[in-house]
Amino acid sequence: MAAPTNGKKLVPEEEHPRKAFGLAAHDSSGLLSPFPFSRRNNGDTDVTIKILYCGICHSDLHSIKNEWKNTIYPIVAGHEIVGEIIEVGSDVKNFKLGDKAGVGCMVESCRSCPSCTTGFENYCPGMILTYNSVHPKDGTMTYGGYSDMIVVDQDFVVRIPENLPLDKAAPLLCAGITVYSPMKYHGLNAPGKHLGVVGLGGLGHVAVKFGKAFGMKVTVISSSPSKEKEAIERLGADAFLVSRSDEQMKAAVASMDGIIDTVSAAHPIPPLLSLLKPNGKMILVGAPEKPLEVPAFTLIFGGKNLSGSMIGGIKDTQEMIDFAGKHNVTADIELISADYVNRAIERLAKADVRYRFVIDIANTLKSNI
Amino acid sequence: MAAPTNGKKLVPEEEHPRKAFGLAAHDSSGLLSPFPFSRRNNGDTDVTIKILYCGICHSDLHSIKNEWKNTIYPIVAGHEIVGEIIEVGSDVKNFKLGDKAGVGCMVESCRSCPSCTTGFENYCPGMILTYNSVHPKDGTMTYGGYSDMIVVDQDFVVRIPENLPLDKAAPLLCAGITVYSPMKYHGLNAPGKHLGVVGLGGLGHVAVKFGKAFGMKVTVISSSPSKEKEAIERLGADAFLVSRSDEQMKAAVASMDGIIDTVSAAHPIPPLLSLLKPNGKMILVGAPEKPLEVPAFTLIFGGKNLSGSMIGGIKDTQEMIDFAGKHNVTADIELISADYVNRAIERLAKADVRYRFVIDIANTLKSNI
Repeated sequence: MAAPTNGKKLVPEEEHPRKAFGLAAHDSSGLLSPFPFSRRNNGDTDVTIKILYCGICHSDLHSIKNEWKNTIYPIVAGHEIVGEIIEVGSDVKNFKLGDKAGVGCMVESCRSCPSCTTGFENYCPGMILTYNSVHPKDGTMTYGGYSDMIVVDQDFVVRIPENLPLDKAAPLLCAGITVYSPMKYHGLNAPGKHLGVVGLGGLGHVAVKFGKAFGMKVTVISSSPSKEKEAIERLGADAFLVSRSDEQMKAAVASMDGIIDTVSAAHPIPPLLSLLKPNGKMILVGAPEKPLEVPAFTLIFGGKNLSGSMIGGIKDTQEMIDFAGKHNVTADIELISADYVNRAIERLAKADVRYRFVIDIANTLKSNI
Repeated sequence: MAAPTNGKKLVPEEEHPRKAFGLAAHDSSGLLSPFPFSRRNNGDTDVTIKILYCGICHSDLHSIKNEWKNTIYPIVAGHEIVGEIIEVGSDVKNFKLGDKAGVGCMVESCRSCPSCTTGFENYCPGMILTYNSVHPKDGTMTYGGYSDMIVVDQDFVVRIPENLPLDKAAPLLCAGITVYSPMKYHGLNAPGKHLGVVGLGGLGHVAVKFGKAFGMKVTVISSSPSKEKEAIERLGADAFLVSRSDEQMKAAVASMDGIIDTVSAAHPIPPLLSLLKPNGKMILVGAPEKPLEVPAFTLIFGGKNLSGSMIGGIKDTQEMIDFAGKHNVTADIELISADYVNRAIERLAKADVRYRFVIDIANTLKSNI
């Protein structure tokens, strides 16, 4: 544990003696550049992870460009972290040196609120994000996975199943749990049920794979007819609906038990609600900027449900990745070297990726790039 | 059963030999006047009910004035019907002469769709409303409870517990089940949980009573500070929130497990969602005309749920009224005579009633008024 801060932010060097190296944005241009920094010593309940791979999530892009107006620069993004444990604290029971481990969007929470005590640390008001948060242990900023190593409390680390390729597993730590958690809690994980997945990006393509692994019928709903082939042939979806086709949408009315909506661009909600069976559930995991317009009767007729969901709890993250291991669910990725990251972020902004960039940290992030 | 219709609407006299008398609106003025009509003979699975009391629901008002643009005149409204069984068909097992019985919003459904077979006849696409629907048995219009008698299939009739006063029980057949059903299905029927009830009208005041009967903490949320006294002293609510008071709303942020929103006038949804705890549930049972504006992040942060619900299934209606009998839950009513009904509808349009008008049918509806 850190010494008391007496209300002052500590000089990192004082409390953070471990040299680290990463890629940081220094302003809202969003350009990443090499960034030497430091991390805390490995505490009694901490593990230190040598980072091997880190996915590039759309949230990273929002954050490094300060699009959510809450970025504190410099920022080291990255919360789809997979690596190898290289140090364990004296009170660490569940990990040992050499274990393959993952870190997602959170690195700490209050541990005592109703959300924390029921496995929803993701909704804890005191939840500490993997980057761009002030860590309560020492009052310093958290830095994410676009870096060579990270020190994290054991309770916010998950084990990666041995059979999963580590690069393709990395995106599961955010994209995977973000779709798995609402599927679990809204009962959209049942064989034979019909799941709609809106949007075929980083989140959507994993939702399709989990849906199929759960034994469901999965229909992809997209505004791009061009995605039909890949949805069905590459990802294994059972059907494809062009959301702009009134005819196709009409034919599918009241056919789905649930819908996972991953789209963060503005799009009309009522046509999607009309696809739900009575008592059906639609869950938003993407957040359009403008308020959704939802006529009350689209929910009242048929007793429909519109919910939101944000990432998932730690226990569920472990469950998700164990399930992924058992069913060989991984993300489809484009593995990039660290020096490609700025170009990757440009391409991500244009949705030009199938379906997730993952940085090959260990092999390509060098302090002299 | 009626003879085949050969696609033609039958002359009522032919197939409907039972003389009945009611109050009907003949145009969108909404004015009710005496209306002699007829009903079908009591079939093998039917019961005939001498109507004793009928509540006046806000839907009646919308319907008689054709505000939903689907009214077929003449219309006999009324779907909060309580009466005494005066005839039973040869295949009727669960009712006998003299039983006190109730009929709510539905008189038939397809009985085979997934909604029907899971107890949600209210979401059956073939559901037949108690009034203003075409009945599949003979192709004639259904007429509701502002009338002296009704013939209904036994499966759409519920037993009224003996201890309940029949006039005060009538509104439970619509208002009661409309709030009870979502409370049941969304887990808002658990002792110790905190329920918010938005709006203190016909639906809201019954929701407060069910909430208390379930052993919950109940907070009424209303734009009218003047309702605080009656909410707490008359209805037994634990607390009262003035929705226009930023200070009061802020103090109650993240305090409620669920909210039943009964308001059909336009009102902002995000401040209500903010009152929910993580994973909290808000259910709309009132339908404002304009689409709701719902920022996605108000659902995503905290994993919140916005649902709709419309009445409830028949089995649940029986369960609801049995529960009401056990816990002495009844509506607060103003009992009126049949000749006051037009004045009552005027007053209802101005929300000038505590909390439901009920027509004393048996004692005051005379064919010579």
